[in-house]
Amino acid sequence: MINWRVIIRILGTLLIGEGGFMLLASIISFIYKENQGFYIIVSAFITSVSGLFLYFSTRKASYQIGKREGYIIVTLAWIVFSFFGCIPFILTKSIPSFTDAFFETVSGFTTTGASILNNIESLSHGILFWRSITQWLGGMGIIVMSLAILPFLGIGGMELFVAEVPGVTPDKLHPRITETAKRLWGIYIFYTLSETILLMFGGMSLFDAINHSFTTMATGGYSTKQASIAYFNSPYIEYIITIFMFLAGTNFTLSYFALKFNFKKVFSNEEFKFYLGFVLLFTLIITFGLHSSKEYPFEKSFRYGIFQVVSIITTTGYVTADYLKWIPVLSVIIFTCMFFGGSAGSTGGGIKIVRVVLIIKNSFLELKRLLHPSAVIPVRLSKKSIPPQIISIVLAFVAFYLFTMVVSTIIMSALGLDLQSAMGSVAASLGNIGPGIGSVGPVENFSHIPAFGKWFLSFLMVLGRLELFTILVIFSPSFWKK
Amino acid sequence: MINWRVIIRILGTLLIGEGGFMLLASIISFIYKENQGFYIIVSAFITSVSGLFLYFSTRKASYQIGKREGYIIVTLAWIVFSFFGCIPFILTKSIPSFTDAFFETVSGFTTTGASILNNIESLSHGILFWRSITQWLGGMGIIVMSLAILPFLGIGGMELFVAEVPGVTPDKLHPRITETAKRLWGIYIFYTLSETILLMFGGMSLFDAINHSFTTMATGGYSTKQASIAYFNSPYIEYIITIFMFLAGTNFTLSYFALKFNFKKVFSNEEFKFYLGFVLLFTLIITFGLHSSKEYPFEKSFRYGIFQVVSIITTTGYVTADYLKWIPVLSVIIFTCMFFGGSAGSTGGGIKIVRVVLIIKNSFLELKRLLHPSAVIPVRLSKKSIPPQIISIVLAFVAFYLFTMVVSTIIMSALGLDLQSAMGSVAASLGNIGPGIGSVGPVENFSHIPAFGKWFLSFLMVLGRLELFTILVIFSPSFWKK
Repeated sequence: MINWRVIIRILGTLLIGEGGFMLLASIISFIYKENQGFYIIVSAFITSVSGLFLYFSTRKASYQIGKREGYIIVTLAWIVFSFFGCIPFILTKSIPSFTDAFFETVSGFTTTGASILNNIESLSHGILFWRSITQWLGGMGIIVMSLAILPFLGIGGMELFVAEVPGVTPDKLHPRITETAKRLWGIYIFYTLSETILLMFGGMSLFDAINHSFTTMATGGYSTKQASIAYFNSPYIEYIITIFMFLAGTNFTLSYFALKFNFKKVFSNEEFKFYLGFVLLFTLIITFGLHSSKEYPFEKSFRYGIFQVVSIITTTGYVTADYLKWIPVLSVIIFTCMFFGGSAGSTGGGIKIVRVVLIIKNSFLELKRLLHPSAVIPVRLSKKSIPPQIISIVLAFVAFYLFTMVVSTIIMSALGLDLQSAMGSVAASLGNIGPGIGSVGPVENFSHIPAFGKWFLSFLMVLGRLELFTILVIFSPSFWKK
Repeated sequence: MINWRVIIRILGTLLIGEGGFMLLASIISFIYKENQGFYIIVSAFITSVSGLFLYFSTRKASYQIGKREGYIIVTLAWIVFSFFGCIPFILTKSIPSFTDAFFETVSGFTTTGASILNNIESLSHGILFWRSITQWLGGMGIIVMSLAILPFLGIGGMELFVAEVPGVTPDKLHPRITETAKRLWGIYIFYTLSETILLMFGGMSLFDAINHSFTTMATGGYSTKQASIAYFNSPYIEYIITIFMFLAGTNFTLSYFALKFNFKKVFSNEEFKFYLGFVLLFTLIITFGLHSSKEYPFEKSFRYGIFQVVSIITTTGYVTADYLKWIPVLSVIIFTCMFFGGSAGSTGGGIKIVRVVLIIKNSFLELKRLLHPSAVIPVRLSKKSIPPQIISIVLAFVAFYLFTMVVSTIIMSALGLDLQSAMGSVAASLGNIGPGIGSVGPVENFSHIPAFGKWFLSFLMVLGRLELFTILVIFSPSFWKK
């Protein structure tokens, strides 16, 4: 029996919280003396009252949450948040179409950053703030989900890739979430504040600095400017954002250890070493490529290179340069970065570095196993052997990921998109990146996609954000048996 | 110690055989009273004498062939054949450039069918015949390799996917090859003759019919016409070729059973059922799509659809229609077909249907395993359980395949190709298909690729043809240890 009561009660609590954050957005609107503040308050009211209604519609339930409840709560949380989260956009007529408003909100909460907006600067401060808040909250949700809930559910081998935060009870879900959340949200907020201050040193207004810090730490990529980070035209701001995107794409437990000066733990983490290695390798190639093909000065080539590589590999999606206008090999490398994703336990989406590393390692070991069929040769990560079942689930994850890519590309092309745009829109949505290639490239947006395509891409964003398995398990018949 | 003597002796024998087939091509040239016949005889002489030299340079060696010798012979056979095989093209000045001649010959022996020729009709009959012969011989080699040698070497789980031919000794390589070869080459020759006769009924000349039968059965796709099969403009010919391409993409041991009227064995083979299923599914979509978008009559839509689906999925690469001019979704489906490949134990290349099926099955079982962590749930194929080690090697194969795709696409784009053409040329070469997408599409050819790219694509053709592992194992350090 699935404990629906506890599920509804938790969703109610979450909605009350969402309403609270809407209220915050309305305060911003009032500070800037915008009429839209009223509609945002109405949205907050609708959301909170719905939350209270859900909460009090059930009697106090025991907090015994099993795996099934975990799957359902995680999935419904993202969907319910998105449905209520689009109310401010609709009521203020900032995005009158329900389809578009939902797309924009899902893209926010999943920290994707794909937008249908053609004129971001025309939005009110309150709405812009709410738009950034959706990403920041999404990022918070992901940290808890990837570091506390998914390892508990055994999704995609997560339990092995995320270093345990000391003092966290690993066997029960409830205390685990509370403890992990406290520690890691602290870091998340600390990083957000630090970035805000540093961006203001670079000449950004407080408002823009807060918004960009929100969406950097979430690896979301929503900007308050249509031209994204290119608008500011400031090397200092670009470097600061690059650093914080990199931090946001790092496993948050490593940040926890780093802030306690336990650097040994950080540099013994193999995923981190590969993450750093991939970023440096791709940056090097792009720096060299831009320097020789566009004849940019070396610093500019390096800055554009590292910014776009980190932005795409961490699945943030900020833009300083139109990478589709680079020579073919450089845009192909950026497209390749779309398949890496951030580290496990970061706010980044995509396949995740650790899975890519495990698959490469396992494939090369397979050659050794072929020559020595009787030897048992396990895959090692950070000096630990990884059990074959974990390798198997990681491979299944990537197989599902690519299989979803292929089928979704066919579906998007059936809506009339050419191959590149179809692949680009799917890679950008499933990987929670934001901009893609083709007609959804870095200086384009998703407004021209047909309505069905927007709903479908919204589904892909949630699917990717919840590491595929969460959703797939719910759709599998054996989930509902017994 | 690697038994080099036996390796050299076998390669010598094979070269003598290759020279014999060149002689056959020169006879064709003389029949048509072409001066080029002389140069083809010279090529045959060079090849055979080199073979004799290799053969007699070693004393009689024992035929004890271990795994290592197997890997080396298979790899060298394709490379050495291609080096000697390009001599007729160069001496007759049909393809004066060594790079181009080598590319064309590798593309022949690997049964890829990618061509650098801009005016195929200008070649002499002798040279056209030799070009087709390279594919036919390549196909023969693949049958023996995939049904006798690779299962012995344990490559990619082949031992499990190919039904054993009765009466074949499975534990020693030499008698196994001889027995398997006898039975299956019989079928190969029988199919080739049948197709030749049936094509002549459709109005093809004897010469064209033989050439096309050679390259159909090899799933090679070289045509004697620049416009490929579209030249003949005959529904009958298109249907006949479709049927024989389908047969060539079927596991040859199933043909063996079918010709003995043991159809139960054929239809209990799960790979065959999926092969048929995929072909019908994609044909259905394309028929519907062409009918509604191009307003072709139903029969024409169906004929174009099934021809191109079978041509690409079996990795033959014949063309009756420019699929890049279809509506986007249809060309995306054709591009997707490039990743399936024929059945295991056929002359088709690519990933192979059985591997795709196993990965899909394993991924869905992983969902079940997630909900029932303690249960042992094996993957089943044709009612047999597949051991986890085999699943692991299949997954590693596909990982290497896709990894090679990505790195090679970056390399080809570094030569200046755009993303689609880079992906297309790599998919078409690694999968031994022939035509790709972009600038190497169905009505284009590979002549514009820079020289380095041609050598690199030639390498990919051999890599793909030898199921990746054969080559990768040789390059791995542990192969040469001890």
